[in-house]
Amino acid sequence: MTRYQHLATLLAERIEQGLYRSGERLPSVRSLSSEHGVSISTVQQAYHLLEDRQLISPQPRSGYFVTHRKAQPPVPPLTRPVQRPVEITQWDAVLEQLSAREERQMVPLGSGNPDVSQPTMKPLWRELGRIAQYQNPELLGYDSLYGMRALRQQISRLMLDSGCVVNSDDILITNGCHEALSIAIRAVCEPGDIVAVESPSFHGTMQMLRAYGVKVVEIPTDSVTGISVEALELALEQWPIKAVILVPTCNNPLGFIMPEARKKAVFCLAQRFDIAIIEDDVYGETAYEYPRPMTIKSLDIDGRVLLCSSFSKTLSPGLRVGWIVPGRYLDRALHTKYIGTGSTGTIAQYAVAEFIRNGHYHRHLRRMRQIYHRNLEEFTCRVRQYFPCGICVSRPQGGFIMWVEMPENIDLVPICCALREQGIQMVAGSLLSASGKYRNCLRLNYALPFDAALEAALRTTGEALGHVLENA
Amino acid sequence: MTRYQHLATLLAERIEQGLYRSGERLPSVRSLSSEHGVSISTVQQAYHLLEDRQLISPQPRSGYFVTHRKAQPPVPPLTRPVQRPVEITQWDAVLEQLSAREERQMVPLGSGNPDVSQPTMKPLWRELGRIAQYQNPELLGYDSLYGMRALRQQISRLMLDSGCVVNSDDILITNGCHEALSIAIRAVCEPGDIVAVESPSFHGTMQMLRAYGVKVVEIPTDSVTGISVEALELALEQWPIKAVILVPTCNNPLGFIMPEARKKAVFCLAQRFDIAIIEDDVYGETAYEYPRPMTIKSLDIDGRVLLCSSFSKTLSPGLRVGWIVPGRYLDRALHTKYIGTGSTGTIAQYAVAEFIRNGHYHRHLRRMRQIYHRNLEEFTCRVRQYFPCGICVSRPQGGFIMWVEMPENIDLVPICCALREQGIQMVAGSLLSASGKYRNCLRLNYALPFDAALEAALRTTGEALGHVLENA
Ligand SMILES: Cc1ncc(COP(=O)(O)O)c(C=O)c1O
Ligand SMILES: Cc1ncc(COP(=O)(O)O)c(C=O)c1O
Repeated sequence: MTRYQHLATLLAERIEQGLYRSGERLPSVRSLSSEHGVSISTVQQAYHLLEDRQLISPQPRSGYFVTHRKAQPPVPPLTRPVQRPVEITQWDAVLEQLSAREERQMVPLGSGNPDVSQPTMKPLWRELGRIAQYQNPELLGYDSLYGMRALRQQISRLMLDSGCVVNSDDILITNGCHEALSIAIRAVCEPGDIVAVESPSFHGTMQMLRAYGVKVVEIPTDSVTGISVEALELALEQWPIKAVILVPTCNNPLGFIMPEARKKAVFCLAQRFDIAIIEDDVYGETAYEYPRPMTIKSLDIDGRVLLCSSFSKTLSPGLRVGWIVPGRYLDRALHTKYIGTGSTGTIAQYAVAEFIRNGHYHRHLRRMRQIYHRNLEEFTCRVRQYFPCGICVSRPQGGFIMWVEMPENIDLVPICCALREQGIQMVAGSLLSASGKYRNCLRLNYALPFDAALEAALRTTGEALGHVLENA
Repeated sequence: MTRYQHLATLLAERIEQGLYRSGERLPSVRSLSSEHGVSISTVQQAYHLLEDRQLISPQPRSGYFVTHRKAQPPVPPLTRPVQRPVEITQWDAVLEQLSAREERQMVPLGSGNPDVSQPTMKPLWRELGRIAQYQNPELLGYDSLYGMRALRQQISRLMLDSGCVVNSDDILITNGCHEALSIAIRAVCEPGDIVAVESPSFHGTMQMLRAYGVKVVEIPTDSVTGISVEALELALEQWPIKAVILVPTCNNPLGFIMPEARKKAVFCLAQRFDIAIIEDDVYGETAYEYPRPMTIKSLDIDGRVLLCSSFSKTLSPGLRVGWIVPGRYLDRALHTKYIGTGSTGTIAQYAVAEFIRNGHYHRHLRRMRQIYHRNLEEFTCRVRQYFPCGICVSRPQGGFIMWVEMPENIDLVPICCALREQGIQMVAGSLLSASGKYRNCLRLNYALPFDAALEAALRTTGEALGHVLENA
């Protein structure tokens, strides 16, 4: 971030926190300049940026004032799913969401795509070019069932940042986090078993559970602190639950990072009830805070945590490079990997390994964290501007997914259909519930750089929501 | 093939067929030269080649004679598996075989690796280089669940050669044939079901069946004509079989190509008993005959055939690019693809699509067919030379896998272990049986170019077999 962007972020936070109140006059350019030890023009640039974002407005000959605007919408309250084992439905809705991948001209507000357009991605192409040049015949043969050692070594190093000390032989490379989760579930569960999940939770995982004949108990989840430990404990007492599946760091779709104490509490519960934890860390490295938060896996003294992740959200989903650290389930995981895909493609693996080894990955991550954080600010601003009052909006602590909640009597499923007709890909919250709850919610992607099309899509969406709210 | 290689092949065939008999004098160089319209030196080169292969030997001042040697060993008789539903074991043996992938210095006589060292592979690296250069951002995003259209179009064209007219929307791209088979089995079977398989049959498929709780009935299979249609019919009458799984073209491990009439007979049986056919065509394009044999899928008027294949045996297994044409099971296949891996990596897909589109694939295939055919001749020659009498040896019609059978009382599993200690990767036939039969058999890979190490490995193996036969 440049100096003026830094200053603008600081001022925006003060406005957010109410230190400068709606309609209040902001400090003069001169006083800010001396307060922060920056030049006059830096302050002016910062003010212009905030003006662009409609946070402040200039008044002739009297300086800048905080814009009169709607208050920050509240965050969604604790969710209240049905707390008994249910079977999962929603495949049709998932398939519909997937089909949007083929319609490239749509504004992908409902997608899970990261931004792959940043210049820090370029070295990945260079690594690929080098692979094409060196023509290493080993890349053409069957890879080890575990995946390439060079990549596993890099991953074991990356995992140190989340507090995990694992050996490269504890890691299995997979085709994205999808295959990692799919392996984890089959390593732990039998058909007829019950697992506990956050609510809402990632639709991909739920479709896997459905296919393997596993039922879920959806646990109430807070949009700031994550799964309710108390509700989880009650569920564990009541049902013969085999495992709990969590996205504890930069959750999809709620955006929370579970506080460390809660992660510990969940781990202790897992020990007490002797269940496995499937920890989906696919967004973990996109946390806005630095250094990144620890994983539950880092507490795992008895091998009960199966950590699943990939480079899909940090680098590129098209690569399909992910991994699982299956703990004591390694043997079953290996067998499941073998019968699913045999081994993983070598070329993407090697390109990523070299990308990390040559220092490009950390540089890229640093940039993406900043970009997503800034996008969030811009996006929140627009949501506040265009969306009606009376909604709740999540405050993500990482990643690029926002959750919007409307009053419970409102059904957004038909609205999403109508928006799709208008070229806006949109996902209703019910996709992310086993029992089809959250029809009153939306999941929004803010990974993409802001442009006129995105702005227009948000405005159209906001109008549609306003409409449905008026007629409710 | 050059002219002299062509002539040598022709003469070798005549010797094989007994037209020139053991100890008999061959035509003079001059007479062959005029008979075939080639130069004297071409005939001399051909004779030198045959001499190198120890098929003929020169005698001073009297020309070339057919070497006194052991007769061509007979092909293995019809197999006789247990013909009732059994559960599959052998995972430990599979894992052991897989671990050899990591030991690069071993002579991979038991592997399923193709030869990836030929110059016709080079353009694949060039296509990869072009991808690195053009930096198409679409390759970085999530691919369609079906796979890249450009590749599916090329595959639908390739399939015309096997008599199949399918649309690119009938094809799903997978991570190798492994994922294709895994999807096919789950699309057709439920746990507790029974399927019929060839015996012996590919261990990967059997491990999948085991994992999904499916039992198999192993059907007697002929090393020249394939699965016994009569025995299959009996089994279908006797058991509630859901599907039959076949590798009908260039079978692994027996090397047969089922005659067209038999393929038709199997399809008719499937119709009569209303079962599905899972057709594994992964070696289909390596048939030595040209044009390539038709698939059972080409007869499929009611969508009951699930065709599975990949570029692993024709191009490179490291790419992990395969496909399934699931017929009427498309919806279930899509769901199974989604919950297994989400979608397939884009870069390898695109490189292969371009490789085919630019005409490199057909050129490469043509070369590989010739090379494997020539390797087979050389390999058979060495097997005859080094291996003891009293064995049966398959006569593959495509691919690069040979099957050797010893008397039934002999156990080769400990021999294989001992050979591995000596740096020779070796697979006993029991790997390829659900019930652990075929401990008296070996599966040999002849894809690799002949060199001193391979020659030594074959000699060592032959000695070990001779030893065990003497002591039996
Ligand atoms: C929480 C979560 N887990 C897993 C995945 C799947 O990741 P991948 O693309 O690596 O398979 C996603 C992607 O949408 C996700 O949001
Ligand atoms: C008969 C057969 N089917 C399928 C496969 C798996 O192919 P792929 O490497 O494309 O997964 C093999 C490879 O060994 C095979 O021999």
